[in-house]
Amino acid sequence: MAREHVIDPSVIHHQWDSGLEPVLAVNSGDTVHYDIKVAGDGQVWPGASYEDTRFDFDTIYNLSGPVWVNGAEPGDTLQIDILELRHGDWGWAAFLPGFGLLPDDFPRGYVRTFALQDQVAEFAPGISIPLAPFCGTLGTHPGEPAQLSPFPPHRGGGNIDNRHLTAGSTLWVPVHLAGALFSCGDPHAAQGDGEVSVTALEAPLSGSMRLTLHKEAISTPRFRVPATGAAIRAGGYQATMGLSPDLMESSRIAVRAMIEWLADSCGLTADDAYLLCSITGDLRIIEVVDAGVWNVAMTMPTAIFDASS
Amino acid sequence: MAREHVIDPSVIHHQWDSGLEPVLAVNSGDTVHYDIKVAGDGQVWPGASYEDTRFDFDTIYNLSGPVWVNGAEPGDTLQIDILELRHGDWGWAAFLPGFGLLPDDFPRGYVRTFALQDQVAEFAPGISIPLAPFCGTLGTHPGEPAQLSPFPPHRGGGNIDNRHLTAGSTLWVPVHLAGALFSCGDPHAAQGDGEVSVTALEAPLSGSMRLTLHKEAISTPRFRVPATGAAIRAGGYQATMGLSPDLMESSRIAVRAMIEWLADSCGLTADDAYLLCSITGDLRIIEVVDAGVWNVAMTMPTAIFDASS
Repeated sequence: MAREHVIDPSVIHHQWDSGLEPVLAVNSGDTVHYDIKVAGDGQVWPGASYEDTRFDFDTIYNLSGPVWVNGAEPGDTLQIDILELRHGDWGWAAFLPGFGLLPDDFPRGYVRTFALQDQVAEFAPGISIPLAPFCGTLGTHPGEPAQLSPFPPHRGGGNIDNRHLTAGSTLWVPVHLAGALFSCGDPHAAQGDGEVSVTALEAPLSGSMRLTLHKEAISTPRFRVPATGAAIRAGGYQATMGLSPDLMESSRIAVRAMIEWLADSCGLTADDAYLLCSITGDLRIIEVVDAGVWNVAMTMPTAIFDASS
Repeated sequence: MAREHVIDPSVIHHQWDSGLEPVLAVNSGDTVHYDIKVAGDGQVWPGASYEDTRFDFDTIYNLSGPVWVNGAEPGDTLQIDILELRHGDWGWAAFLPGFGLLPDDFPRGYVRTFALQDQVAEFAPGISIPLAPFCGTLGTHPGEPAQLSPFPPHRGGGNIDNRHLTAGSTLWVPVHLAGALFSCGDPHAAQGDGEVSVTALEAPLSGSMRLTLHKEAISTPRFRVPATGAAIRAGGYQATMGLSPDLMESSRIAVRAMIEWLADSCGLTADDAYLLCSITGDLRIIEVVDAGVWNVAMTMPTAIFDASS
């Protein structure tokens, strides 16, 4: 019979490590209740500026787990049903020197913090971001190597930064070690496809996930997203296109043009426009087959703008 | 005062050519009514198989225009409001040797034709595709060179294959020559972001567009999409993820995994699954900033599947 577990929120780890003692053992079908610290907890705080922050990349991610799944073996598939996620009362977003899609355009560092209330963050006068919480990092230990950094993503999932994995969605990832060694963290209150500035709207989350084991293999992570009638992106969007022979360069062109448009039409600074692209804009591959020129769009949901603006 | 024009559907051209006589001259704010031949008109027909077809890439695109916009000069911006688009009664989709995202996986050619009725195409038992017509090719002449192929896309737009440009949407493109020389064609009844197999669901379209001139410059094409409450993609999706150091390779991994999933869960052949990815699936850049490993997802709208399947 399926059980429910509350995972100890004080037990965190900062990297994938197959030698860690599991904090919890569960059966297939069990549900785990989480209370997840924000990335950079204690290194950034409400009201902090970039100059105030004390980022330490070795400890910036606070992963909860690992959870041992009884009976899990390499070659199995772990299903994670994301049952519920609630955001905390504040969050932060940033760009950092040398990171993100446009490090040459934005060589400095910039941090903003936000009060989060009633599932909305006020970004600027006339611009409100509906929140859609998810975990940026979740998955199984990849097996090899035994120890590795929480980024980038790996064959067990990890830091996939997939904004679609909100409550109601399901993720399937391959199992690479006995017990699966499931961890999650890096909680995000909002993000666009691409996460272009390098952060989402980072915020503490609490919530519940159900873990189910399947005795069959998948080649790469898969996910399912439910219908969302009130979804932010159902309200239409403004968008820019980057046309070039390289998907990365096309992405850069589209994001630069969106930053220009947000500055011109909404009066945002370039710094704020870049953050908004990261925490709300989506990078979409429009076409990838046309005689060596690929089309990538950055789309910005109309729903974030006041009707009057 | 804004006027309405019916463009002569018998005047078509197969490449961008600044020496062509404009078929129509319009003022800013005028509306043009179109009747647009399908790509490959006469080279593929209802019921044709790949072996039947007679594709000629020099004449496969049937572009309508060019339309001369009075007063347009280099450095201006042309706004195209897509007012209405209606699909014809049949369409086709294909993959072709050496083209598309997965030419090594699908080295042969494969063509399917569809009856289109009531804005739906039946793809397979239990799989119906809601139609969302748009022009794959539209834009201004790019200026240089004077003559060029209809593909790939260029700095005036051209073959951007942007599925988001359905009725109600607006496109802005730079003007590079006096008169703007606007053309459109390559009508599509449905397509996913990425257009991975190399065709959309190609079908004849009729419809209306309003052309408006702005005396200001933009750096790259921009578009706006209206709210669409009944949108196919609001109904949730199934998705696969490709994680790799290269956006193109990540795209390939995600599409291959979706093809596998469609075969396993819906019983589609790999050939049909690849076509379905092209005409309905979306490639989304989930993250492009994480320590050299990028996450691209292929998402397949749940709305195309029978609830019972």
